[in-house]
Amino acid sequence: MKENILSMPAPDMYSDCRIKKIAVLTSGGDAPGMNAAIRAVTRSAIYFGREVVGIYYGYKGMINKNFQIMKSGDVSNIIQSGGTILKSARSKEFMTKEGREKAYQNLKEENIDALVVIGGDGTFTGARIFAQEFNFPIVGVPGTIDNDLFGTDFTVGYDTALNTIVQAVDKIRDTATAHERLFFIEVMGRDAGFLALNGGIAAGSEAVLIPEFETDMGTLETYIETGYRKNKKSSIVLVAEGDKAGGAFSIASKIEREYPQYDVRVTVLGHVQRGGSPTASDRILAGRLGVAAIEALLDDQKSVMVGIEFDEIVHVPFNKAIKNEKSVNQHLLRVLRMLSI
Amino acid sequence: MKENILSMPAPDMYSDCRIKKIAVLTSGGDAPGMNAAIRAVTRSAIYFGREVVGIYYGYKGMINKNFQIMKSGDVSNIIQSGGTILKSARSKEFMTKEGREKAYQNLKEENIDALVVIGGDGTFTGARIFAQEFNFPIVGVPGTIDNDLFGTDFTVGYDTALNTIVQAVDKIRDTATAHERLFFIEVMGRDAGFLALNGGIAAGSEAVLIPEFETDMGTLETYIETGYRKNKKSSIVLVAEGDKAGGAFSIASKIEREYPQYDVRVTVLGHVQRGGSPTASDRILAGRLGVAAIEALLDDQKSVMVGIEFDEIVHVPFNKAIKNEKSVNQHLLRVLRMLSI
Amino acid sequence: MKENILSMPAPDMYSDCRIKKIAVLTSGGDAPGMNAAIRAVTRSAIYFGREVVGIYYGYKGMINKNFQIMKSGDVSNIIQSGGTILKSARSKEFMTKEGREKAYQNLKEENIDALVVIGGDGTFTGARIFAQEFNFPIVGVPGTIDNDLFGTDFTVGYDTALNTIVQAVDKIRDTATAHERLFFIEVMGRDAGFLALNGGIAAGSEAVLIPEFETDMGTLETYIETGYRKNKKSSIVLVAEGDKAGGAFSIASKIEREYPQYDVRVTVLGHVQRGGSPTASDRILAGRLGVAAIEALLDDQKSVMVGIEFDEIVHVPFNKAIKNEKSVNQHLLRVLRMLSI
Amino acid sequence: MKENILSMPAPDMYSDCRIKKIAVLTSGGDAPGMNAAIRAVTRSAIYFGREVVGIYYGYKGMINKNFQIMKSGDVSNIIQSGGTILKSARSKEFMTKEGREKAYQNLKEENIDALVVIGGDGTFTGARIFAQEFNFPIVGVPGTIDNDLFGTDFTVGYDTALNTIVQAVDKIRDTATAHERLFFIEVMGRDAGFLALNGGIAAGSEAVLIPEFETDMGTLETYIETGYRKNKKSSIVLVAEGDKAGGAFSIASKIEREYPQYDVRVTVLGHVQRGGSPTASDRILAGRLGVAAIEALLDDQKSVMVGIEFDEIVHVPFNKAIKNEKSVNQHLLRVLRMLSI
Repeated sequence: MKENILSMPAPDMYSDCRIKKIAVLTSGGDAPGMNAAIRAVTRSAIYFGREVVGIYYGYKGMINKNFQIMKSGDVSNIIQSGGTILKSARSKEFMTKEGREKAYQNLKEENIDALVVIGGDGTFTGARIFAQEFNFPIVGVPGTIDNDLFGTDFTVGYDTALNTIVQAVDKIRDTATAHERLFFIEVMGRDAGFLALNGGIAAGSEAVLIPEFETDMGTLETYIETGYRKNKKSSIVLVAEGDKAGGAFSIASKIEREYPQYDVRVTVLGHVQRGGSPTASDRILAGRLGVAAIEALLDDQKSVMVGIEFDEIVHVPFNKAIKNEKSVNQHLLRVLRMLSI
Repeated sequence: MKENILSMPAPDMYSDCRIKKIAVLTSGGDAPGMNAAIRAVTRSAIYFGREVVGIYYGYKGMINKNFQIMKSGDVSNIIQSGGTILKSARSKEFMTKEGREKAYQNLKEENIDALVVIGGDGTFTGARIFAQEFNFPIVGVPGTIDNDLFGTDFTVGYDTALNTIVQAVDKIRDTATAHERLFFIEVMGRDAGFLALNGGIAAGSEAVLIPEFETDMGTLETYIETGYRKNKKSSIVLVAEGDKAGGAFSIASKIEREYPQYDVRVTVLGHVQRGGSPTASDRILAGRLGVAAIEALLDDQKSVMVGIEFDEIVHVPFNKAIKNEKSVNQHLLRVLRMLSI
Repeated sequence: MKENILSMPAPDMYSDCRIKKIAVLTSGGDAPGMNAAIRAVTRSAIYFGREVVGIYYGYKGMINKNFQIMKSGDVSNIIQSGGTILKSARSKEFMTKEGREKAYQNLKEENIDALVVIGGDGTFTGARIFAQEFNFPIVGVPGTIDNDLFGTDFTVGYDTALNTIVQAVDKIRDTATAHERLFFIEVMGRDAGFLALNGGIAAGSEAVLIPEFETDMGTLETYIETGYRKNKKSSIVLVAEGDKAGGAFSIASKIEREYPQYDVRVTVLGHVQRGGSPTASDRILAGRLGVAAIEALLDDQKSVMVGIEFDEIVHVPFNKAIKNEKSVNQHLLRVLRMLSI
Repeated sequence: MKENILSMPAPDMYSDCRIKKIAVLTSGGDAPGMNAAIRAVTRSAIYFGREVVGIYYGYKGMINKNFQIMKSGDVSNIIQSGGTILKSARSKEFMTKEGREKAYQNLKEENIDALVVIGGDGTFTGARIFAQEFNFPIVGVPGTIDNDLFGTDFTVGYDTALNTIVQAVDKIRDTATAHERLFFIEVMGRDAGFLALNGGIAAGSEAVLIPEFETDMGTLETYIETGYRKNKKSSIVLVAEGDKAGGAFSIASKIEREYPQYDVRVTVLGHVQRGGSPTASDRILAGRLGVAAIEALLDDQKSVMVGIEFDEIVHVPFNKAIKNEKSVNQHLLRVLRMLSI
């Protein structure tokens, strides 16, 4: 029998830290779990006696001063919602020195001492420059469905998108089986094949085409042919949008030309992959990383992304998170192939 | 306190009917609930002491004699599955007199006395010709996601597809709201706007474009403009694939040209709309219509589709089900527009 | 090619009606789709140039004056949410003349001319008395998962609860099949068996026990025995909470005593049945009935529930909606039994 | 650009291993993903040129010789199904020396050289004894929703059960919020609080009560009181079934007695937690562990559970997997409490 579950850390443990007011924004493509992260950032900051300011529309709102004080109740009942209550937007102005200067003045005017940014590599690239220019403490929370950030095992939104893909492919398989068709299904992932590869394994697909590997049309053809010869009557191939051989439509028409006997179909899953209520994993991850971001700031960290590696919180310099490449687990490729025989 | 819930109709009530062996097939595009219908046909026929033969691959399998005896246990645990365990296929051969003659001989050889076909208007067109040519009793169960069959309030599969669409649009709305975008979402419906119109109301979309009505681009533009002026920041327009103004991509690019200030996106939902576990409504409908199809045959009916109108079973001649046009409820258009202000 | 889909009814068509300000509340047990109904009431009233006031906590809030002006934007993004943004509560005070007097004064003070109440029979009973006492126009929207209101084919929330039940039973069947168990699953329905009966058909259950019929334990036992003798290895029985033979636990223990060889389990689905994102059907129904409620008031109706019968809007006096009994479709009992052989 | 994604490991790499025929069974409580594991075991064994035998009903079927040869096609289209196609059962006979002797003879008669068992600690306890007694190679795949096996970060079925819980609590929260109630929700976990604790964080619950920690009713009461004083109007407490203070009903009635002003409700989620289509994570985990189990056998391992730690395959002696205690992440308790302020 160990310590009491209801005991709590001391709310005043960071009373000597000079950061009193913390802003939070979301930027870049939205991802399920961003709201859970906003909730965690807000509530843990309030827990430690800090004030929280929500910035709407990402960096654009930082320039246009779309600020709003956030109380605990303002983040009630959002843990289960997709999208982001703080909205997201692109900002060309923030790419200029003048834009960032204006943003900085706005933060100063409101006595904001630090910033949490939730987003992907574009978001962190902006954060890194801003932090350097104005010596301003920023911590990032990885929020992107692509899971392509180095230094964290998972990004917020990835698990939800993966499940959305798998559920969609399950539905398509009903039709593929009934009509004995060959389906090419395009999923998100411009530079990274995490969604396609893991989605392919989980959905029991016959093959995946991902940006990390050269797509050899000949091998794909042999593979499909063999399957058909072995009496496999329907097949599903997941194609990452950034695949080198072109998108699902282009690959499908190549196959169709060569094998007119196959009944080929294409579905591009599109924007459904970005939305929806976050999975349990994404909500827990968002909760942990949101708390970790506030603790990192109060622990005097800056220009780092908080991440999770081997179930432990880690701090990864923005520079590394952006520039290093995170690679797909090659063991999974073998698993996929063995299981699709 | 009324009759006992556990009492049953007499299994021998049709003992004088000469139909002893009944075949069942699915044909055309698959729809969720087809398996529940196969189960209902099979079990109610067995209940009334009949033998059941499953025909695989629709009319093609009738020609190729892909027959299999179906027992009650063969349709266990399929009520919840999308697709069709009997598969579906197109058959050019069945469009010829020779093909149909061959199919008829196969039925005779196996002593099959009657047939239940589950599908849409293509299926019933084939059934009607075959029934006339060989004076063979056939009853149809309406199974198509499009809900475009005259004489039945609902077709098996429609409610599931509608819910799939609404759940997908809910997800896309998360993104549309976060980024304040204008989305055009294309849904199935080559000739009928049931999915787009009802999906549009249920998803809270701003407008729908359906084949039944002329799409006036000017009005659509005015409408979107007004919304934006009234501070509506994201909009969703559902486009039936058979809309007269072209698909979602074509309409979106027209709008984009005229209004470069809008952030326009397109998603084509595609084949996910056909699959998935059927909703409660679709399963109940499939169950009722499957039983009704067997009762109709045993009641000496032929060349009819069984349907549901005002919660009652009806028999609709194939000829009427195919040729008469079922119209969308115009009242719903008003509801949609009022609710999107 | 018919009238343009984007044309609209005249917003000033009710300009001569003296009702200018309309309040809306939800009361009784919450049901999925109540928010969609609030949205429809609010927006259609605004469309016709009326002001809308939301009353929080049902009749209690009417007494405590928890009023708030509702704009179109206040009901954005709620169509997909379960529960009710206007909250619900029981009010003993409203059962007294004094309480209702106070409520009436509050409405007068705010110049509220009419009221829409969304709820079940308890809600309409209160509305009927209030309307008579103060000659105040009230229209009701049927919102309850039980579907037990006379005069409407469906109530808002019923279809969602039905699907929640079916999805839960699907999950339990995975376990029942794996372990070859006999499951008794209790679902909501104190006086009405709609959920149990329709849920039972849709989930492919072996039997249902509902309040409308005497449960003959002997027949149930024979039935289960027969199933087992025919090699049915797992069975699922749905029990409405109001079943005359007692709840699921009580029935299960009777069976267990008699048949120790069965591996019996019980699950009481409980409050999960009330929540969740409404289905497409429930959202469309809520939309149509919300608009119809406003039109009824502007058409000078009072003390009626708006309902849907045979896909048409109907007006049912509160008195009839409450007192007449809506009966389950007995044909469905036959369907259930035939399909569980 | 790295190696070709479509290249494969050599199917004959284990040609010198004497294990030619491998049996697989599932035992104990079923868990979502067991079918995906059966598929992976079967296909990877076939890939490496081995024969596969499915044993029905766990150890009971090993004694009763419920054996069946499994081909690749026999595990098609099961990756998405809950439950287990090989069924599960308890066997008292297997707890006796005679029973196990009989089982061993059956394996020998069929020339089965090795066994994969999918289940939890009960399953592995039986496997360990059997393996020792007959010097028979057995490898285990952790399949249990409780996640309570030492030596693996996750067990197959846990992620699905967690998501089922979170979706159920989301629905209940709709009602809790609408009526401003205090809900106690009981989830599975006789000895382990993984589901309750992680479910509580993901669902945004106010507190969790788990077996690993003493439940101090005083602190719980203070906590709830404080919440109410801070104007929190509805609360959700997750209770693991094995909590020391008793189940949800018992705790709820204590609270109700002390605080009659709270509107308290209880829901016991029950068997829905065991079923359902597995999540992406559970399918991928099942796929990896199924392959790993076959590779372990062919690599001459025995009496080990294959697990996943830090995203790598590990081999854990049965003895350790069963006897060592896996502890919940205490950091998560802090996160839960901070986020529920």
